[in-house]
Amino acid sequence: LVSGERLWQSLMEMGKIGATEKGGCNRLALTQLDKQARDLFCQWCEAVGCTISVDKMGNIFARREGLDNSLGAVCTGSHLDTQPTGGKFDGVFGVLSGVEVLRTLHDLNIQTRAPIEVSVWTNEEGSRFQPAMQGSGVYVGRFNLEEEWAKTDVDGHTVKQALEDIGYLGDQEIGSRHIQAFFEAHIEQGPILEDEDKQIGVVRLGQGIRWYNVTVTGRESHAGSTPMHLRADALASAANIIAYIEDIAQAHKPNGLATTGFMQVYPNSRNTIPGTVTFSVDLRNPDAEVLASMDQMFNEYCEQIATQRQVNVEVDHFWYFAPVTFSASDNVKVAAQKLGYSHMDIFAGAGHDACYMADIVPSGMVFTPCKDGISHNEIEFTTPEQCEAGCNVLLHAMLEVAEV
Amino acid sequence: LVSGERLWQSLMEMGKIGATEKGGCNRLALTQLDKQARDLFCQWCEAVGCTISVDKMGNIFARREGLDNSLGAVCTGSHLDTQPTGGKFDGVFGVLSGVEVLRTLHDLNIQTRAPIEVSVWTNEEGSRFQPAMQGSGVYVGRFNLEEEWAKTDVDGHTVKQALEDIGYLGDQEIGSRHIQAFFEAHIEQGPILEDEDKQIGVVRLGQGIRWYNVTVTGRESHAGSTPMHLRADALASAANIIAYIEDIAQAHKPNGLATTGFMQVYPNSRNTIPGTVTFSVDLRNPDAEVLASMDQMFNEYCEQIATQRQVNVEVDHFWYFAPVTFSASDNVKVAAQKLGYSHMDIFAGAGHDACYMADIVPSGMVFTPCKDGISHNEIEFTTPEQCEAGCNVLLHAMLEVAEV
Ligand SMILES: NC(=O)NCCC(=O)O
Ligand SMILES: NC(=O)NCCC(=O)O
Repeated sequence: LVSGERLWQSLMEMGKIGATEKGGCNRLALTQLDKQARDLFCQWCEAVGCTISVDKMGNIFARREGLDNSLGAVCTGSHLDTQPTGGKFDGVFGVLSGVEVLRTLHDLNIQTRAPIEVSVWTNEEGSRFQPAMQGSGVYVGRFNLEEEWAKTDVDGHTVKQALEDIGYLGDQEIGSRHIQAFFEAHIEQGPILEDEDKQIGVVRLGQGIRWYNVTVTGRESHAGSTPMHLRADALASAANIIAYIEDIAQAHKPNGLATTGFMQVYPNSRNTIPGTVTFSVDLRNPDAEVLASMDQMFNEYCEQIATQRQVNVEVDHFWYFAPVTFSASDNVKVAAQKLGYSHMDIFAGAGHDACYMADIVPSGMVFTPCKDGISHNEIEFTTPEQCEAGCNVLLHAMLEVAEV
Repeated sequence: LVSGERLWQSLMEMGKIGATEKGGCNRLALTQLDKQARDLFCQWCEAVGCTISVDKMGNIFARREGLDNSLGAVCTGSHLDTQPTGGKFDGVFGVLSGVEVLRTLHDLNIQTRAPIEVSVWTNEEGSRFQPAMQGSGVYVGRFNLEEEWAKTDVDGHTVKQALEDIGYLGDQEIGSRHIQAFFEAHIEQGPILEDEDKQIGVVRLGQGIRWYNVTVTGRESHAGSTPMHLRADALASAANIIAYIEDIAQAHKPNGLATTGFMQVYPNSRNTIPGTVTFSVDLRNPDAEVLASMDQMFNEYCEQIATQRQVNVEVDHFWYFAPVTFSASDNVKVAAQKLGYSHMDIFAGAGHDACYMADIVPSGMVFTPCKDGISHNEIEFTTPEQCEAGCNVLLHAMLEVAEV
C-alpha cells in the first residue's frame, strides 16, 4: 500500500508552484512555473533511482527498470499544467500518484517484471495553447508535431519556442517508447462519485468533445447615433449564439453540455458597436451521434444569425475528439474490489491523456471524488483519504499488469 | 467665408497622428498621441496670435482678443481624442473648424467686439476613461475635479497621472474663464442628413444617456464535467442580458438605443465556465421618461437573471446624462439660412461637449452629414465641401454673437 501522507505532502508542495490567494493554482502550460513543477517532478523521480527522458513535444518519462526490460513498460501519468483558476489536484494528482507508486516500490524494494514509467504530458489543459491533451495527442500520432509546435498563445508565442524557453524541448523521437499499458488516476471533476458515495470511479468511457473558434464580424459604429435596424453588431450576434448553445445542451438531455469560456471583443470601447468578436464553443456528449446532432444544430444557428443580422459568422471547428472506451478498465475494477473500496462505473466528462493513450495501448482510468464536483476552480478539493484510495487502486492495477 | 481647402489640409495633417491602416485614427485620450495632437493645435493657434491656457483638467483654451475684452468670449470647441477604431472627423472637425475660424479672422484682419476662444476638451470619447465628455463635464461643475482625476483606465493609470505624463495638467482653475456663448461643429455620426439630403443640421436637442458597468459573478467550474443544471455560468448569464437589451430598445421605438461595447471575461479559458464577466451597457433616448422606462426594464431583467441563474448581478449605473436643449440653436439656423445652405432641425445621438456647456451658457451645435451615417469607425468620412459648409455656418453663428 502507498503512503497517503507522503502523497498528500507532495501534492501540497507541488501546489506551492503557482499558488493563488484562493488556495488554487495558476500554472499555465510551458510557463516558468510549469518548468519549476517539471523540475521538481524530475528531482523526485531521480531520487528513487529513475532515469528521465524528454521527447520533442516536452513530454517527460521517468523510468524504473523491471526484471525483463524487453517487456513494454506499464505506464501511468497525467499533467502538471493547470487552468488560470485551477486547483491543486486536476492532473497533478495523477502525476504525483505515479511518483508515489515509484516511491512505494522503491521503499518496499519491489521488483516488477515489466518496467514502470511515469509520464508528464505537455499542455493537457488546452488553456494557453489549443487543443487540449496536446502532448499525448502528438505522442500517439493524432496531431502532427510540426503543426503543434507552430501553435500560438494569445500573445503569439509558439509552443516550440515556449518549450525551448523552459528547457523542455527534448530530443527523444515522438512515440518511440515501448509501453504495454497506460493507467491514469484523476479527480472526477464532477459530482457523481460524491453523490453516490463511492470511493472509486472505474472509468469506462471518455466522452466526445468538439471545440470551435467562432469569429463574428459586423461593422463598428456609434452606439448613440446608429439606429437599431442599421446595426451589424458583432457582440449582440455573439451573445445570441452563446445564449443559444445552452438550448442545444437542453435539446440533448441528459448529457449534452455546451460552454463558451473564452471571448475577445474588438475594439472593446463602450460607445462603439463591436466590429469583431471571437469566442470559443465547447460541445460534449458521451454519444458520438448525439454530439453530431449538437454540432449540426450549432452550425445551423450560426448560419441563421449571419443571415438575420447581416454579420459574418466564421466557425472554425478545429478539434473533434471522438468518445473513447477504456479496454483496461477491468484492471482498475479488480484492484478496487481487491482493496475493498466502494466503486462504480463512470464516464469521464473531461478529456484526459489516457483518452489518447487508449489509441495505442490498453488503458484505464481511476477516478476519485472531488468536493461538490467542482474543478477548474481554485477551491477544487479531494481529501487525503480519497487521494490515498485512488493511488492504491492505481498501484494495484499497474502491478497486476507489470507482475511482481 | 472660410477656406475649405485649408480646413481639409489641417484635418488630413491632424489625422496622421495615430493614423490606422484602414484610414482612421486611434488616438485615445491622454496618450502620447493625444499630446502630439494637442501640441499641434497650440502651435497652429499661436501662429495666428492666440494665447493658450490649460486648466487643471487639461482643457485647452486658445484666445483671440476682441475690441471689448470685458465681454465674455464667444467660444467654440470640441475634442481631439478618438475611439480605438475612430475616424479623422469625430471631434477633430469641431476643433479644426475653430482653428479655421481663427485663421479666417486673422487673414481678413477682422476685429470682433467680444473675444473669440477655441477649446479642446479632455477625454470626450469616454473610451479610455469614463464617463464621456469628462473635461467639459468637470468644467461646468457636473463632475468633481478630484474624483475625475482619480478615475482609472483598464490598466489602472489615473487621469491625473496621465495629464501629468503628457504635460497637460494645467494650473488654471476649473470654470474660471469668462464665456458668453458656446458653439460646436460636429459630424452628425448618423444617417439622417444624408438620407434627407441636407447640408446642415441645426441641433435642437442632445439625447439622454445612461451608462452602466455590469458585473456578473457565477462560479468557475469544468466545461466537460459540470452538468448544465449545476452551473453558475457568468458568461451565459451576461449573454442573455446583452441579447435582452436589444429587446429593450425595440420596446421603446422609434428612438430607443441599447449597446454593449465593452466586455471582459474571467478567467477566459475555453474549458472553464466563466466565473466573472464585466460589461458595459449604454441606453439612450431623446425623451427622459422613455429612457427611465428603459432603465427600469434593464434593472428588472438583471434581477430576474440573478434569481433564475443563481448568479450575482451587480449593476453600477455610474452616469446619467439628461436630455439637453440648445438655446443658441437659432443662431445656427440663421447662419445656415443666410449662407443659403439646405438645413433641418435634428437631435444629437451622441453626447457632445456642447451638451455640458449648455448648462452654463447659451449653446448651439452645427452638424454636417457623414457618409452612410458611420462613425466610431475608421472609414468615417465627410466630404471637403460638407466640412467647409459646416465651418462657414460656425463662423457666422459665432460672429452674430461676437459682433464685428
Ligand atoms: N482534465 C481536464 O481538465 N482536461 C482538460 C481538457 C478538457 O477540457 O476536458
Ligand atoms: N461624439 C461622440 O462620439 N461622443 C462620445 C460620447 C458618446 O458616447 O456619445
